[in-house]
Amino acid sequence: MTTELVRVGIIGCGNIGADHIDRVANQISGARVTALFDVATDRVKELAAQVGAVALPTASEVINSPDVDAIIIASPGEYHAALTLECIAAGKPVMCEKPLAPTVEECEAVLAAEQAAGRRLVQVGFMRRNDVGYRHMKDNLTAGNIGEALILHCEHRNPDVPDSFTSEMSMTDSVIHEIDTARWLLGEEIVRVRVIAGKQTPNAASHLNDPQLVIMESQSGVIISVEVFVNAKYGYDVRCEIVGSNGVTSLGTQDLGQFVSDTRRTVTMPANWRVRFGDAYRAEIQDWINGIKAGEPRGANSFDGLAATLVAQAAVRAVKSGETVEVPVLEKPAFYA
Amino acid sequence: MTTELVRVGIIGCGNIGADHIDRVANQISGARVTALFDVATDRVKELAAQVGAVALPTASEVINSPDVDAIIIASPGEYHAALTLECIAAGKPVMCEKPLAPTVEECEAVLAAEQAAGRRLVQVGFMRRNDVGYRHMKDNLTAGNIGEALILHCEHRNPDVPDSFTSEMSMTDSVIHEIDTARWLLGEEIVRVRVIAGKQTPNAASHLNDPQLVIMESQSGVIISVEVFVNAKYGYDVRCEIVGSNGVTSLGTQDLGQFVSDTRRTVTMPANWRVRFGDAYRAEIQDWINGIKAGEPRGANSFDGLAATLVAQAAVRAVKSGETVEVPVLEKPAFYA
Amino acid sequence: MTTELVRVGIIGCGNIGADHIDRVANQISGARVTALFDVATDRVKELAAQVGAVALPTASEVINSPDVDAIIIASPGEYHAALTLECIAAGKPVMCEKPLAPTVEECEAVLAAEQAAGRRLVQVGFMRRNDVGYRHMKDNLTAGNIGEALILHCEHRNPDVPDSFTSEMSMTDSVIHEIDTARWLLGEEIVRVRVIAGKQTPNAASHLNDPQLVIMESQSGVIISVEVFVNAKYGYDVRCEIVGSNGVTSLGTQDLGQFVSDTRRTVTMPANWRVRFGDAYRAEIQDWINGIKAGEPRGANSFDGLAATLVAQAAVRAVKSGETVEVPVLEKPAFYA
Amino acid sequence: MTTELVRVGIIGCGNIGADHIDRVANQISGARVTALFDVATDRVKELAAQVGAVALPTASEVINSPDVDAIIIASPGEYHAALTLECIAAGKPVMCEKPLAPTVEECEAVLAAEQAAGRRLVQVGFMRRNDVGYRHMKDNLTAGNIGEALILHCEHRNPDVPDSFTSEMSMTDSVIHEIDTARWLLGEEIVRVRVIAGKQTPNAASHLNDPQLVIMESQSGVIISVEVFVNAKYGYDVRCEIVGSNGVTSLGTQDLGQFVSDTRRTVTMPANWRVRFGDAYRAEIQDWINGIKAGEPRGANSFDGLAATLVAQAAVRAVKSGETVEVPVLEKPAFYA
Repeated sequence: MTTELVRVGIIGCGNIGADHIDRVANQISGARVTALFDVATDRVKELAAQVGAVALPTASEVINSPDVDAIIIASPGEYHAALTLECIAAGKPVMCEKPLAPTVEECEAVLAAEQAAGRRLVQVGFMRRNDVGYRHMKDNLTAGNIGEALILHCEHRNPDVPDSFTSEMSMTDSVIHEIDTARWLLGEEIVRVRVIAGKQTPNAASHLNDPQLVIMESQSGVIISVEVFVNAKYGYDVRCEIVGSNGVTSLGTQDLGQFVSDTRRTVTMPANWRVRFGDAYRAEIQDWINGIKAGEPRGANSFDGLAATLVAQAAVRAVKSGETVEVPVLEKPAFYA
Repeated sequence: MTTELVRVGIIGCGNIGADHIDRVANQISGARVTALFDVATDRVKELAAQVGAVALPTASEVINSPDVDAIIIASPGEYHAALTLECIAAGKPVMCEKPLAPTVEECEAVLAAEQAAGRRLVQVGFMRRNDVGYRHMKDNLTAGNIGEALILHCEHRNPDVPDSFTSEMSMTDSVIHEIDTARWLLGEEIVRVRVIAGKQTPNAASHLNDPQLVIMESQSGVIISVEVFVNAKYGYDVRCEIVGSNGVTSLGTQDLGQFVSDTRRTVTMPANWRVRFGDAYRAEIQDWINGIKAGEPRGANSFDGLAATLVAQAAVRAVKSGETVEVPVLEKPAFYA
Repeated sequence: MTTELVRVGIIGCGNIGADHIDRVANQISGARVTALFDVATDRVKELAAQVGAVALPTASEVINSPDVDAIIIASPGEYHAALTLECIAAGKPVMCEKPLAPTVEECEAVLAAEQAAGRRLVQVGFMRRNDVGYRHMKDNLTAGNIGEALILHCEHRNPDVPDSFTSEMSMTDSVIHEIDTARWLLGEEIVRVRVIAGKQTPNAASHLNDPQLVIMESQSGVIISVEVFVNAKYGYDVRCEIVGSNGVTSLGTQDLGQFVSDTRRTVTMPANWRVRFGDAYRAEIQDWINGIKAGEPRGANSFDGLAATLVAQAAVRAVKSGETVEVPVLEKPAFYA
Repeated sequence: MTTELVRVGIIGCGNIGADHIDRVANQISGARVTALFDVATDRVKELAAQVGAVALPTASEVINSPDVDAIIIASPGEYHAALTLECIAAGKPVMCEKPLAPTVEECEAVLAAEQAAGRRLVQVGFMRRNDVGYRHMKDNLTAGNIGEALILHCEHRNPDVPDSFTSEMSMTDSVIHEIDTARWLLGEEIVRVRVIAGKQTPNAASHLNDPQLVIMESQSGVIISVEVFVNAKYGYDVRCEIVGSNGVTSLGTQDLGQFVSDTRRTVTMPANWRVRFGDAYRAEIQDWINGIKAGEPRGANSFDGLAATLVAQAAVRAVKSGETVEVPVLEKPAFYA
């Protein structure tokens, strides 16, 4: 592995983009931030100054800069496909935040371009694959500690969302993580999805179904039950359990610390996803950089991104129709084996 | 409250019946066992001798014995209604194990007879209402600690069942406990049920759907999700969580103790329902006896028994049809207010 | 075992005495309360009326009443020996709350009288021996799950005490439970004790050392470390861990339930010893009654009471002197084998 | 903060040294490894090749190399002081693994040289200060959640040690971590120490006292109780609890994940200190590098190193004598304020 620093350009410098800037600049090994783009020009100049990078006037200039070896895309999802295609055209590795693209067609265009380019350049930001807890679950399943997987229970609770958040976004922004987690843990595709919206929280905008219960099934029939509740108020709480034929394995409680007073044991929980998955994000970016330096692609690839969008879009149709939606199983190109 | 001992007759002396004999004779206050009936005549004589009771040749003789003040019915479910009706006719309090009866019609006959008799004589054995953990959940909900209930998650796992156990029995024998728990916790009726059988465990008889996921809805739209897995192998594991608009409350882990060795923390779980709910059963029978002595009926009543059977029968139809089944909401007679 | 009810007389009807009345009358099998004595005559009459017993003018009349088969002594410790001796003289089984007596001499007088009477009549109220958690620890040790015991860590925290409570009473009232627990878990005697009073809580009376750290050693050299903190404010918290040569075993957390809100998981702890050890007390009294009916003495005996007082008195001397105090090992009479 | 990489030389490339090489090269931001020294010349060459560094023939050449900006010392403790002094002479920041030096005199020489040099160059490797769990404890104490600290309970258990490990090394290698932790958590010095060796594990060499119980006191009288058990067999288990006047705060269980089978919940614990404190070590080194780049010294300083050695040496005397040993309180130079 070379000791040269990978020079990273970052497109989109909002919450998660700013976190990625800090991670590449200050928390991981082997990389530095050299160029940034965001529509908020004042903010991006300030961020650039903090890490010794330049703020460029367009995303294309970041992608094509001779001072940029690899790109992180953290802009809104609607721009993901176009920017990723531009990275492929430039022959540079790219870490695109989820989703790879909001539509299946755009995802397919990315896969086509990447295959035409002849080498794997695209990673999709499904950071849970780097979370210690999920890895232990996968290890327990793989080691045979619980027999074969039969049911996957997931809860995905977020303290709150802005009023602009929609019932469909619960699928494309939140449940998409469980979709990838399920595919990765179980090693098979999701073929069916239905969505149940029961009693609604008084704390959400009236147009939003919240909570929703998503019931999916995998190729072998594993039931994947996902509660998604984006105005859960009490904190950020992500849970997962695999029920196997001989036992179960689950994430721990992720508590951060405790104190006891007044006949109450008070345990602090992570306030949001940035706290809960901070270590996983750091590990994801470190692993991505290590992969670039070693010349080996790692993490979730374009096909994973396509498969997740395919299921998320089916879930969106299930939200709208109230019906069970079948999901076609795509053949995985050998290129992604 | 009188200090006279309530003289209890017990009909059906299998596993749970024998436990009830021991509870009344040796674990609670204010009662003693005076008469028993079971078709296994040798066994019942032995049990009778142990507690200073008599074994009578028929259930009717137990019910009508002048030495019996109150009756526990622990015989197979098909006999429950007829025996309960006989207790009502004798004017004696009766604790009937769940279900009150396998059919809605039989349950209705019990309610009619009890109302005609003019006083509440029947309690149904939904012992979870006496479990410390479930009571804490209900207290937390009632105290407003979690806002209003939106979702109820339940898991009901049993280590194994005999080959004669059917997919329908998962509803009438196992899920019926969650049905009563949901009604009791939420204070409203269940109006809809569907059952999903996904990937099946290799450890069950081929005719049995196991595990199954039961999705119910309450009048106000609370989603009640119940995983029932009767060959879970690893132990007896019952869990419950109420998701509220401002927080969640759940049963604890029910672990019995722990030791640590070889880089493993090993926590002992209850092996079966007799261990897990032993305290709840004891509290249930004590409370029943206290109610008899105080002249105040307590616990789950005939209407609760009817409502549970109504939903369980709908779940049976859902198992058979694979469809969503609507459950009519019965009007609760003022007699049971 | 006879089905006759054991008629219990109770002497001392304060907090714990009243709890025992309720237990014998309403929570256990095979006994009833027939006679009471307390210096608070109004209160004792009220309690007697509630359970259908009589309030007698002296303790002696309770002990010698023809309507009393067995006696519970819950009066102040200074009366324990005299009352226990009177029970022995009457030939009746007695459950004496801890301590058996405040002085070693009085305890020895009890043992002498009991041996002269020729049968075991005395049980001492060390209820932890009936606690599920401590039993699991003992089972784990006995089963060889943790190798041989090397260290015993104990914490004994009480929310608060009245101003009249003294540093010595922390030994005779609180630590005496750990003394018995250690002897029972380890199966050997305590031979050495020292007491360290470090920084004192601002929440205690100035004359009281609180918290104190008690370091004891057993015959085989097991170190028994006891933190006693009687104004711990935050709740009642008793913990215990055995460190073995191959592993450790400990009490669980004893939490009663939980709810989650506002990024905090709030777990309710027992507020006091009556809540924490309610089940153990009930089991202790049930077991005592069962033993009487079976004609087999059970639970902690007079020798256990003597041994505990011997160590507690050594601890009192250690509090006063600040020195390490050696404790002689008494020979256990075959009568108590 | 500059974006230039800090060029790090590492002296001593055994277990912890090799981990530090990997951390600087592959896990943190802002630094790279440029030069190594170890007496095991083959091994050091291999390690150097892996990270693009050079292996130099002496430690002095590493320290004085123009390609080295800062040094990590991970050689045996006896060389720490001399090497640290050489770093100070070279005017380069140094992160010295604990202990700063085995003797008080050597530590004092380091402080004298550093003060003469006129700026803070030395950090001591007490990585627990960077552990999330200990930080939460300190935050809870500082926030007033538990009142004022009265007792500190610590357990330090290691699975096993080589036969060459001595009773004194339990103090200088293991308990020294608790000494620093106590000083850092409580913000005051330790003034008294005694060591009790009770029953010994059959799993240790006969010359070794194991386990040992160390009782220390702070200036304000806080009792610090440390169980050190270096052949605990079952795993690596470090625990800590602060008992305050109004509540307690403690480390969590540090479990890594769980699965359930065969009526047992099996929770995986960290196998050794490298797993348990991996994140803390990484954070420590990252923080050290950040401090160098910002020109601000951070972490434990020379005075902390001296104070820890002073107490550890007193503990060694306490092991040998069996007596309570008083520890003088050193005045902290303003230079280290």
